[in-house]
Amino acid sequence: MWFTSDNAAGAAPGVIEAMARADEGPAMAYGADAVTERARGLVREVLGAPDAAVHFVATGTAANALALATLTPPWGAIWCHDHAHVEEDECGAPEFFTGGAKLVKLAGGDGRIAPAALDAAIGATGGAVHHVQKGALSLTQATEAGTVYSAADLRALAGAAKAAGASVHLDGTRFANALAATGASPAEMSHEAGVDILCLGFTKNGALAAEAVVIFDDRLAWEFELRRKRAGHLFSKMRFVAAQVAALLEEDRWLRLAEHANRMAADLAAGLSALPGVRILHPVEANLVFAELPRAAHEAARAKGAAYHNWAGDAGPDHVTVRLVCSHATGADEVDALLAACRAG
Amino acid sequence: MWFTSDNAAGAAPGVIEAMARADEGPAMAYGADAVTERARGLVREVLGAPDAAVHFVATGTAANALALATLTPPWGAIWCHDHAHVEEDECGAPEFFTGGAKLVKLAGGDGRIAPAALDAAIGATGGAVHHVQKGALSLTQATEAGTVYSAADLRALAGAAKAAGASVHLDGTRFANALAATGASPAEMSHEAGVDILCLGFTKNGALAAEAVVIFDDRLAWEFELRRKRAGHLFSKMRFVAAQVAALLEEDRWLRLAEHANRMAADLAAGLSALPGVRILHPVEANLVFAELPRAAHEAARAKGAAYHNWAGDAGPDHVTVRLVCSHATGADEVDALLAACRAG
Amino acid sequence: MWFTSDNAAGAAPGVIEAMARADEGPAMAYGADAVTERARGLVREVLGAPDAAVHFVATGTAANALALATLTPPWGAIWCHDHAHVEEDECGAPEFFTGGAKLVKLAGGDGRIAPAALDAAIGATGGAVHHVQKGALSLTQATEAGTVYSAADLRALAGAAKAAGASVHLDGTRFANALAATGASPAEMSHEAGVDILCLGFTKNGALAAEAVVIFDDRLAWEFELRRKRAGHLFSKMRFVAAQVAALLEEDRWLRLAEHANRMAADLAAGLSALPGVRILHPVEANLVFAELPRAAHEAARAKGAAYHNWAGDAGPDHVTVRLVCSHATGADEVDALLAACRAG
Amino acid sequence: MWFTSDNAAGAAPGVIEAMARADEGPAMAYGADAVTERARGLVREVLGAPDAAVHFVATGTAANALALATLTPPWGAIWCHDHAHVEEDECGAPEFFTGGAKLVKLAGGDGRIAPAALDAAIGATGGAVHHVQKGALSLTQATEAGTVYSAADLRALAGAAKAAGASVHLDGTRFANALAATGASPAEMSHEAGVDILCLGFTKNGALAAEAVVIFDDRLAWEFELRRKRAGHLFSKMRFVAAQVAALLEEDRWLRLAEHANRMAADLAAGLSALPGVRILHPVEANLVFAELPRAAHEAARAKGAAYHNWAGDAGPDHVTVRLVCSHATGADEVDALLAACRAG
Repeated sequence: MWFTSDNAAGAAPGVIEAMARADEGPAMAYGADAVTERARGLVREVLGAPDAAVHFVATGTAANALALATLTPPWGAIWCHDHAHVEEDECGAPEFFTGGAKLVKLAGGDGRIAPAALDAAIGATGGAVHHVQKGALSLTQATEAGTVYSAADLRALAGAAKAAGASVHLDGTRFANALAATGASPAEMSHEAGVDILCLGFTKNGALAAEAVVIFDDRLAWEFELRRKRAGHLFSKMRFVAAQVAALLEEDRWLRLAEHANRMAADLAAGLSALPGVRILHPVEANLVFAELPRAAHEAARAKGAAYHNWAGDAGPDHVTVRLVCSHATGADEVDALLAACRAG
Repeated sequence: MWFTSDNAAGAAPGVIEAMARADEGPAMAYGADAVTERARGLVREVLGAPDAAVHFVATGTAANALALATLTPPWGAIWCHDHAHVEEDECGAPEFFTGGAKLVKLAGGDGRIAPAALDAAIGATGGAVHHVQKGALSLTQATEAGTVYSAADLRALAGAAKAAGASVHLDGTRFANALAATGASPAEMSHEAGVDILCLGFTKNGALAAEAVVIFDDRLAWEFELRRKRAGHLFSKMRFVAAQVAALLEEDRWLRLAEHANRMAADLAAGLSALPGVRILHPVEANLVFAELPRAAHEAARAKGAAYHNWAGDAGPDHVTVRLVCSHATGADEVDALLAACRAG
Repeated sequence: MWFTSDNAAGAAPGVIEAMARADEGPAMAYGADAVTERARGLVREVLGAPDAAVHFVATGTAANALALATLTPPWGAIWCHDHAHVEEDECGAPEFFTGGAKLVKLAGGDGRIAPAALDAAIGATGGAVHHVQKGALSLTQATEAGTVYSAADLRALAGAAKAAGASVHLDGTRFANALAATGASPAEMSHEAGVDILCLGFTKNGALAAEAVVIFDDRLAWEFELRRKRAGHLFSKMRFVAAQVAALLEEDRWLRLAEHANRMAADLAAGLSALPGVRILHPVEANLVFAELPRAAHEAARAKGAAYHNWAGDAGPDHVTVRLVCSHATGADEVDALLAACRAG
Repeated sequence: MWFTSDNAAGAAPGVIEAMARADEGPAMAYGADAVTERARGLVREVLGAPDAAVHFVATGTAANALALATLTPPWGAIWCHDHAHVEEDECGAPEFFTGGAKLVKLAGGDGRIAPAALDAAIGATGGAVHHVQKGALSLTQATEAGTVYSAADLRALAGAAKAAGASVHLDGTRFANALAATGASPAEMSHEAGVDILCLGFTKNGALAAEAVVIFDDRLAWEFELRRKRAGHLFSKMRFVAAQVAALLEEDRWLRLAEHANRMAADLAAGLSALPGVRILHPVEANLVFAELPRAAHEAARAKGAAYHNWAGDAGPDHVTVRLVCSHATGADEVDALLAACRAG
């Protein structure tokens, strides 16, 4: 019964084996090897972006911060959702990497930026030299609330940003979950929607530590490479990062892993909804469930050893707000056990 | 015949297996797991430093830059050897992480900082507000020239820096090679010599991507942790980094791997020395051989497929300067083959 | 009829003369001169802070950004009002000088931070390594809305911040106006209230370009000096900056200038209030008037050559939101002329 | 007898008067005033650069650091002379403003960069992602050694940098002295030689605190303006900075002031040369004299109250190395008095 985060899970089947297979004698370092080349090609193919520059790093924070630094100058505003990971959970990494850009928070229900909030921010940003200037829009897909933007949503938001001269970053830590949820193609959900740099997450999907940064405008690629090196994120034995990505992209494994995680979340939400006094806080579209549980149910679940995080939110004295995350490794038995524990509470 | 770098080798035996063993069900993220705790304990034990803070990152550049940023303010001078990795090979990572500290280059033969050069720098640094101030001494062990400081050398240099109010960083990318070369203990070569933060490298030793940062003054530990997170170097699935470190420290495996690499280099140097027209440029104390080869020998070696880097240096028209690096994976047959090729040249 | 800003005014009487008097032969540069020493002493005396370190710069943005960088690490949160100058009008200077700290906006009516908003921010900041940590509270006195904190207000806000381990910065661009408005002493309004660094503004008060940074904890003084030099804000011919400060502090000139500006604003507000359809948006406690004017009044004023800024705010189709700023140089005739023009509109 | 620096002198005649004249009623802030516009025009006219962007700041360190940050990315190398002000005397300001660029020191006699040293640096900079890349060449005119580059020297050095894809910065703190020394035109000595940004110093020439930054490629101007504001170097009452520049440029006053300072230095050097045991260390082409004085002469001068700085250099036990700087305010009587004191020593 482990629902703390999708980063609590280990490797998806095949990932460590692929790393072991990559370990065949010496290879050129820093990505000049065949395994890395192949993984790059797979990413380009999946995205339908034959000219994109593809680079690997090992954490989502690194991917996001390097992408944002490549897309916005130090005096740029970065528009993001009130609860974006880049705003709340990276200890100021975007500010560090950009040399002090300003994150501007945008409201929006269920983790999605409200178009009106973006429009207002666009109108209020820039102008005279006293103010920070239009920099980048940072979107998260799937969102931190476990919801998903449609391709049309993305196009509209990205289009507004680009029309204003800003660039567009997509934090795709759970991109596969969004694809699995919507059936949209990777292309529709990224460059076709106007995304300039996609941070394509594999760690939460089933890798040990692997993220692809996909730069659709390859004129930005060399700057990105210099920033990556300078930030200590260029791996000498790159093939072992790349092998993880390749293992997950082959045979659409990444999508099937995401589908599984999404389904577990849907089952969990459905089960919880049926319990008296439970309130589901956001539509469960990907692999995260936010819920208010009756305190007794919560305590019973904890007593049975359920691991998950309490979450911010004022649920009153008799309820507890929690976040429950499913992953590729979540078992149906875990879902059932948690529901049973809550039911008994 | 692969001598480009010790980062061209893959994993040492047991490393990937240890990662696979660490993959047993879910675990708390970000290092709050048992595998990480065990690896931390092994590092402390090996170093005889029960109170040290131990944190893991995945690249040497990250380890060095984070350590230097923790040890020196933005207006600090960082004294390092003319050819230190932090100066030449990190695309300005120390400058980025420190917020613009100034690396001050110190001369010294065979890759070792000359004590007189350090003394002169200490005397010339600081004073009025117009100048950068005394920050940190950055030492490299084994050096970039493949030589080694004795424990007494380290004590003297570190002592001079500390007497001047500066702190001491040790880039230990090849620390195991230095230990294997000298027989000194890890403690003698680090905190007992006055080192404040040791960047203990495992990647070149046989890991895939793992470095330990050992902070002997644990009052600096929280700042280091914040810097690491903020730089995107905090791994969610930390256990898979830590497992590599543990696998190498167990049963002194790291030392035996380093001894092997050193021995291969010694054999290579001995063989080359016996060839007419070859000049070995630095004492071969660790796992690197710098040599001037007759051009014909060089071309013959290349023709046989030997992989290594040409190196800076004016060897005249008839010779070529090269760097040859041995690793845990270098075979005696590779050494023999290279010697044979050169001999035939 | 010039009401754009108090920085539109030139020098108060006596300021340029004092600069000319400071020009008596050569002097040691960078503040090691008698004029600077005397100005420092006057600041300490006025503030009742004999041990404070006092340094001069020439812009308010420099003063604020250097102070904040001295008070908070790069991973610190800086709590400030929604409309603080540091947040809105410095093009990200605090982010630049701090190395990427995060400004966290706090709500509050009439330009004053609401205590509850600060308490909530204190509660929400810090904790695990994923989040920015408690850094500094930045207060503005008088506020950007032309209101004033009482000494008790300041004590309460600063006390809450300090109890949480954060430090306290006071942007005193219009500090003299706040003193004139309340009759509180400079000491009550700064160090006695818990302020760690006061940025004491003289430029808007009547200097050409002079601000004093007063560091009550002199252990921070050397770091401040290094940051100032490194940022290019250490003047070689410092005496000409210091002379301005001395000229204004002598004989309480700064307070009388501020009283005048405040009185002009009060008269202006009183006159506007008497006009039909005018709404004064914030209590007029210092030298700024924010008002909604009937569009006809606004147009009539403009037609008569009145200079002032339109301001953000939704006043509906028939009204216009404006900011009117009085200074040491504002004449009663200007106030009368503006009122007459509006009345005729 | 005041020879510490040309920043020890006060204002040249007419400067404070011009500031007083600029104080005629209110004016738009931040440079949108007629005085500033006029000063900009004068700078453009003097330089024969009608399309250049001209911005004012108040310190040479600010001018240099802002210019370098505009010209080079954080991962750029900045080539400068071993003893450049940007390297030695700005407490790391270039590193701070650029976000951590690396200053690379170039040797050269008498304060001038040796063309061969620049060529070698160009050859050694850039390439793979591990290394900092070609950024900017920073020249100083007149040099820190009191010598001057000819226009042909500048063209050659700047040309080499630009051919390599780097940009060119000129630290013209003593630009007027160089013009006075050579008779070259401001255009020949700047944009015609390949300079991209000229930092044109007036403070040491006779202003209180005023420097013009001249950006010949006006596509860089907006970035410069944002950097200036963000660094706190945008003055609200700009006209008082600009008035100083205008006062000095009118009627070629700046050149006559520089000629005077140069002549005083030449007279001083000639007089010292005639003394037994004195050695002049660099050709005296501008307004600085570096000399080894017999210790007795030095002590006699000090006893008579002569103010100047001892300087780095090993003059042996019987001599002292000193730097003597003349300014617009240096009197022939001061020169004579110093010579007399030395002679008596």
